[in-house]
Amino acid sequence: MGTDSTSASRDPARPSSSPSEPDLFSATYARGPVAALFSGRSWLQAMLDVEAALARACAADGLIPADAADAIAAVCDAGRFDVGAIALDAGAHASPVVPLVGLLRSQVREELADHVHFGATSQDIIDTAAMLLGRRALEHLLTDADALAQACANLARTHRATAMSGRTLLQLALPTSFGLRAAGWMVGVREAAADLRTQGLAVQMGGPVGARAPGVGALVAAELGLSEPVLPWQAIRVRVGKLAGALGVLAGVLAKLARDVTLLAQGEVGEVHEGSGGGGSSAMSHKSNPVAAVSVLACAKRIPGLVVTLLAAMEQEHERAAGAWQAEWGTLAQLLTLTGSAAAWAREMVERLEIDPARMRENLARLESEGVAEAAEPERHLDGALALIERALETEDFR
Amino acid sequence: MGTDSTSASRDPARPSSSPSEPDLFSATYARGPVAALFSGRSWLQAMLDVEAALARACAADGLIPADAADAIAAVCDAGRFDVGAIALDAGAHASPVVPLVGLLRSQVREELADHVHFGATSQDIIDTAAMLLGRRALEHLLTDADALAQACANLARTHRATAMSGRTLLQLALPTSFGLRAAGWMVGVREAAADLRTQGLAVQMGGPVGARAPGVGALVAAELGLSEPVLPWQAIRVRVGKLAGALGVLAGVLAKLARDVTLLAQGEVGEVHEGSGGGGSSAMSHKSNPVAAVSVLACAKRIPGLVVTLLAAMEQEHERAAGAWQAEWGTLAQLLTLTGSAAAWAREMVERLEIDPARMRENLARLESEGVAEAAEPERHLDGALALIERALETEDFR
Amino acid sequence: MGTDSTSASRDPARPSSSPSEPDLFSATYARGPVAALFSGRSWLQAMLDVEAALARACAADGLIPADAADAIAAVCDAGRFDVGAIALDAGAHASPVVPLVGLLRSQVREELADHVHFGATSQDIIDTAAMLLGRRALEHLLTDADALAQACANLARTHRATAMSGRTLLQLALPTSFGLRAAGWMVGVREAAADLRTQGLAVQMGGPVGARAPGVGALVAAELGLSEPVLPWQAIRVRVGKLAGALGVLAGVLAKLARDVTLLAQGEVGEVHEGSGGGGSSAMSHKSNPVAAVSVLACAKRIPGLVVTLLAAMEQEHERAAGAWQAEWGTLAQLLTLTGSAAAWAREMVERLEIDPARMRENLARLESEGVAEAAEPERHLDGALALIERALETEDFR
Amino acid sequence: MGTDSTSASRDPARPSSSPSEPDLFSATYARGPVAALFSGRSWLQAMLDVEAALARACAADGLIPADAADAIAAVCDAGRFDVGAIALDAGAHASPVVPLVGLLRSQVREELADHVHFGATSQDIIDTAAMLLGRRALEHLLTDADALAQACANLARTHRATAMSGRTLLQLALPTSFGLRAAGWMVGVREAAADLRTQGLAVQMGGPVGARAPGVGALVAAELGLSEPVLPWQAIRVRVGKLAGALGVLAGVLAKLARDVTLLAQGEVGEVHEGSGGGGSSAMSHKSNPVAAVSVLACAKRIPGLVVTLLAAMEQEHERAAGAWQAEWGTLAQLLTLTGSAAAWAREMVERLEIDPARMRENLARLESEGVAEAAEPERHLDGALALIERALETEDFR
Repeated sequence: MGTDSTSASRDPARPSSSPSEPDLFSATYARGPVAALFSGRSWLQAMLDVEAALARACAADGLIPADAADAIAAVCDAGRFDVGAIALDAGAHASPVVPLVGLLRSQVREELADHVHFGATSQDIIDTAAMLLGRRALEHLLTDADALAQACANLARTHRATAMSGRTLLQLALPTSFGLRAAGWMVGVREAAADLRTQGLAVQMGGPVGARAPGVGALVAAELGLSEPVLPWQAIRVRVGKLAGALGVLAGVLAKLARDVTLLAQGEVGEVHEGSGGGGSSAMSHKSNPVAAVSVLACAKRIPGLVVTLLAAMEQEHERAAGAWQAEWGTLAQLLTLTGSAAAWAREMVERLEIDPARMRENLARLESEGVAEAAEPERHLDGALALIERALETEDFR
Repeated sequence: MGTDSTSASRDPARPSSSPSEPDLFSATYARGPVAALFSGRSWLQAMLDVEAALARACAADGLIPADAADAIAAVCDAGRFDVGAIALDAGAHASPVVPLVGLLRSQVREELADHVHFGATSQDIIDTAAMLLGRRALEHLLTDADALAQACANLARTHRATAMSGRTLLQLALPTSFGLRAAGWMVGVREAAADLRTQGLAVQMGGPVGARAPGVGALVAAELGLSEPVLPWQAIRVRVGKLAGALGVLAGVLAKLARDVTLLAQGEVGEVHEGSGGGGSSAMSHKSNPVAAVSVLACAKRIPGLVVTLLAAMEQEHERAAGAWQAEWGTLAQLLTLTGSAAAWAREMVERLEIDPARMRENLARLESEGVAEAAEPERHLDGALALIERALETEDFR
Repeated sequence: MGTDSTSASRDPARPSSSPSEPDLFSATYARGPVAALFSGRSWLQAMLDVEAALARACAADGLIPADAADAIAAVCDAGRFDVGAIALDAGAHASPVVPLVGLLRSQVREELADHVHFGATSQDIIDTAAMLLGRRALEHLLTDADALAQACANLARTHRATAMSGRTLLQLALPTSFGLRAAGWMVGVREAAADLRTQGLAVQMGGPVGARAPGVGALVAAELGLSEPVLPWQAIRVRVGKLAGALGVLAGVLAKLARDVTLLAQGEVGEVHEGSGGGGSSAMSHKSNPVAAVSVLACAKRIPGLVVTLLAAMEQEHERAAGAWQAEWGTLAQLLTLTGSAAAWAREMVERLEIDPARMRENLARLESEGVAEAAEPERHLDGALALIERALETEDFR
Repeated sequence: MGTDSTSASRDPARPSSSPSEPDLFSATYARGPVAALFSGRSWLQAMLDVEAALARACAADGLIPADAADAIAAVCDAGRFDVGAIALDAGAHASPVVPLVGLLRSQVREELADHVHFGATSQDIIDTAAMLLGRRALEHLLTDADALAQACANLARTHRATAMSGRTLLQLALPTSFGLRAAGWMVGVREAAADLRTQGLAVQMGGPVGARAPGVGALVAAELGLSEPVLPWQAIRVRVGKLAGALGVLAGVLAKLARDVTLLAQGEVGEVHEGSGGGGSSAMSHKSNPVAAVSVLACAKRIPGLVVTLLAAMEQEHERAAGAWQAEWGTLAQLLTLTGSAAAWAREMVERLEIDPARMRENLARLESEGVAEAAEPERHLDGALALIERALETEDFR
């Protein structure tokens, strides 16, 4: 046993004394840059960014003195706060903002304390912070989605005339080209990503019951680079629902790509392989597992269940919900994290995908043996595929 | 055309002339005009509309003779077919199109049989028919959503200065105005409906493995008034996922409205009532139940579960999925039906909603007794609400 | 009349004498005997069965005269009522029971009218009717599940020593036997079905607010062969949640079986085929599609989304929910129907499954060529599989 | 500071250099002892516990020397390993077990390395570790559920004759007693918890393709106190599905309790209050928020979406799934954590709930004013409630 082993140290229910508790499955679920955005410290900093922007906006609007805003903004640095202590105190309020505002007030001169969090409510801070993090997450996500689409386009161009058997209902069907398959992936990724580019991530600045006049909100929006909503959206969660839906659609496309890769990489099919050796097995040394595809699917399969939570949580009471809003926080963070991870894995998967035209030809021969004449000279039947690929590359500007 | 064929007989929303077995719960789940679109006969007619458009497109493209197209289109009338028999035969093929095409061929002169369903596959017909029905459903849905938004706007305008207590976490909070609540409903409905106006409902015309050259598809799209996709989308289900997400978001907003109505209509709150007496009870004659709100919620609560099915079903194999595609048919139909019913009920709910400013004032007095000074003269605290309402009405063009 | 009434007109599974408008997709989604249970007429008859049992129970308890009970029971025949008219009137009450009770009262002598529906509320009738239909549905479902398990056991026994390649992460792995695969299916089906055998389907007889003393409920339970709950469960939906979960688990197992069949039936794998020719294609005559497996998956993939609806709907307010309860009706009916259809299709799928040991051997040769020595003489590595199969057959009493 | 801050310490995408990243929302989502079970270190220790048990079982079965088992078990201490490094290496294999086994082998004498992980596969270790953690989680969960049921029973007994208005469809209905409401909660909790007591949490010890002979598995099961399955259940996930369903049902009951508390605690209703002052607001000092109820709902509303993920993931391919299995790991951990948190919060909520019989009486007066005569002397109408409460307390052994 280890040096510090006692029976107590083996009790998993005992709170850990060490501050570090990495997730053992983060390589699968938290690949790429999105996950880090939703650490406790990053959430805290985003909330402080909102408090700072609010102070500046209030100063600009003449509601608090300019030097109060400066003093407040100067202490809006997560490094000054104990994330764990705030998280603990949050329990008594069902909100980390209540203890945060208290601490923030204690960090400025006493006479400035009332200028902190001026006219705002917990929901203003949490919702706006979530939108800030959401925007950063979407930037990362779209970077990976664009690279993924590019990698698909490259395959489409290179393999436009690489004949393979189309398959329907998991049966060999008729010849097509691998390039068309890859073009379909590309178009799917692009069409799904398009909706992520147009999300109206907006500031929340409604005050206690959503009736704050628009002025300060507009200024905060400008400070933070978020859009300004027509009305505070405290219990009208269209933004959250739309974002969830769009992420769910992208995840669905990523799952489709990864499912195709796992199927084409089967030993009996062998038409594609994940390059760089793929992943090993703890029991079978000969195997080369489609690790990236499996990881995409591991993430993507968790996403529809998160979307359903957010859509069902749109049923929010009055000016602030009792439960449905609070259920969003962790769900949205996880939804963005898992979609980010799926996108990062999918990009790697396609970027390193190796195509085996010879095996495609062998499988076409099996199709021919099933009596499909077109499989004998498949290249003669690719005109439609070629025209479609050209159109897709042109439409999506991948020439 | 069939013996009873008139142009009316081609209207898929027309009730079948044969008596049907009603669903005992249709008043709740199938209110409004959307449900009828998804009867067996209406689905069949939509498929026949696609076959007719395909024939005309093939003729225009020189693939089949023009008179063949005319002959085919002439028999594309659901009244000529036995829906039940087709449904039964569909089981052996996991598709109603296989028996339908057989019957369609038998309805034309023998030498024209090969011109029927030319170059198409089952999925072309079912997917395009679903998009046709979806477009009609969205038209109905948007009509109700627009009327609902108008009714909300009317309440917002009328009650802009009707003071009520805002409520957060289901606790009395601070004064606001009922008009702002109604304006929030209006904006939510409009923002959710906006995504339904821009759905890219597109033709599917990819042939057996999705590699059909684009020409015929463009002609079919023009015939049917659908858009033309960059590529066939047989196993790339972005369109279905986006439609599902957008319907889920609208349903979430409708649930929010109905939840508010049920809460405000509580006996102890009494701030709103469904007009026209509300619904009776089989056991308690004194009760006036918020029937429309309950019905909205009965529909809306079923919708996230349908969205999750469609998002999870985006993981489709190769050129046509074995199971995930076939799971869409009934799910999408039900999703549109239930959203249509929720919208119809929500419109009625708000159009007949009665507001009780006196009870609002009584509840503000309770808030005052809890020590909230603003509740004594709530009108003095409505400036923010008034400004927001004006902006909302102006933005959404409801002046 | 009692539940064992021999009158054919009382059999809720009997197709309505009036022609119905068929669902075009019923062959996929509504195979087997469960679907008919949830027609409008069958629901209505189940509600009338409850009203009749209630009348008898009230008479037995001395609450109403015995001849009143006889007179009421005599008219509790769905054939006497217009389903469509009741469905229509239900809209004004968010319940079909309100109009039904009115009509039922009009069918008996005026002085008996007050004895109809004595002390009951809409929810008593609908919930108890749902449990009655649920019990009948489970009987059908378990019949199919048992036959399916038997078919799996037959395959396990016959093919205990039929070597095939095991596959992990969709890669060829190490030899196993097809019999073990089939034994795994069998055990999965049996373990999932076990929970369906022990569902506590109970009467609901709480009266308007769930406070009715237990006597009448016990008598109604005895009349109908349902169990008696400790308390009325009007807004405590454990029974519905458990039933949903158990159906979801069975559906998950069925999906696993069908997924395996689609994968093993791939052209490149070819280890199993659905017998009887499989299904045809509207475009490709050479294809033999795994129609039963596809149909299982089409149903099973719709089921988790229905379970999530019912679990989320457990959040019910006070003594009767405003929306969440009403959302259950159609969802539970559809959940049972789709699970019934999936089970019927799965039974057919396995009963007619054809196994191709030669292709299994060919695929093992490919595994051997990948350097797996065990694949050369796979029979020498089946000891574990054989022992497991024996144990499984013995445990589940399939020797 | 602004959003464009250049300080590196503010870049949320930069991997944190500090090891600690507490979740800012853990007070809401991770209350009670369950959450700690699913830290990286606890998962790792559980996997090592399985490796140690496997070594001992192999020694007992004569497969490896006894001293090898001792040596292996001696190093199966998570304190000897770097969780973060294993998590990182896991990415290349879609499994943390591959790097773990490598490190474990390096910790024992070279000639013993082959005795580590003898005959096992990654899935054996992960699945068995998950079941170990699941068992511990259920123990904690049931402790809280039992205490919650006891607290409900106490309320039922104390308030058996405390009259209140029953409410249906959120309308005042007829008198009942608060004790009956509490008894309903108690029965719901007990019935939901019952299924958690009978989960067949079983060892997984099937080896690479699930064909390992039963001997070693039985010994490992005995070592770890888990049950032994009939067959390895690598891709037959009935256990996971049943556990998910049972947790979903308990969460549904907890949501019902919390929803009732939020409704009864409304300012206009005022019949219950969370004791100990409730939670404060960052903006409104007068408010006493139902923090525990809100927290229960925040957790419980996230649970159906996790159940749907696990049910949908039951569709697993062949002997080990490519994606669906890997999606389970984080989902199951989160499902147990959130249910554990909801149960801990619900116990606190009911244990400190304060009842206000005077307000109940006031609300009954409102009911009377609506014309309900029974509300004038509600005690005369509690016979049914009293009988039901007695039966419930007796049945559940809470006298």
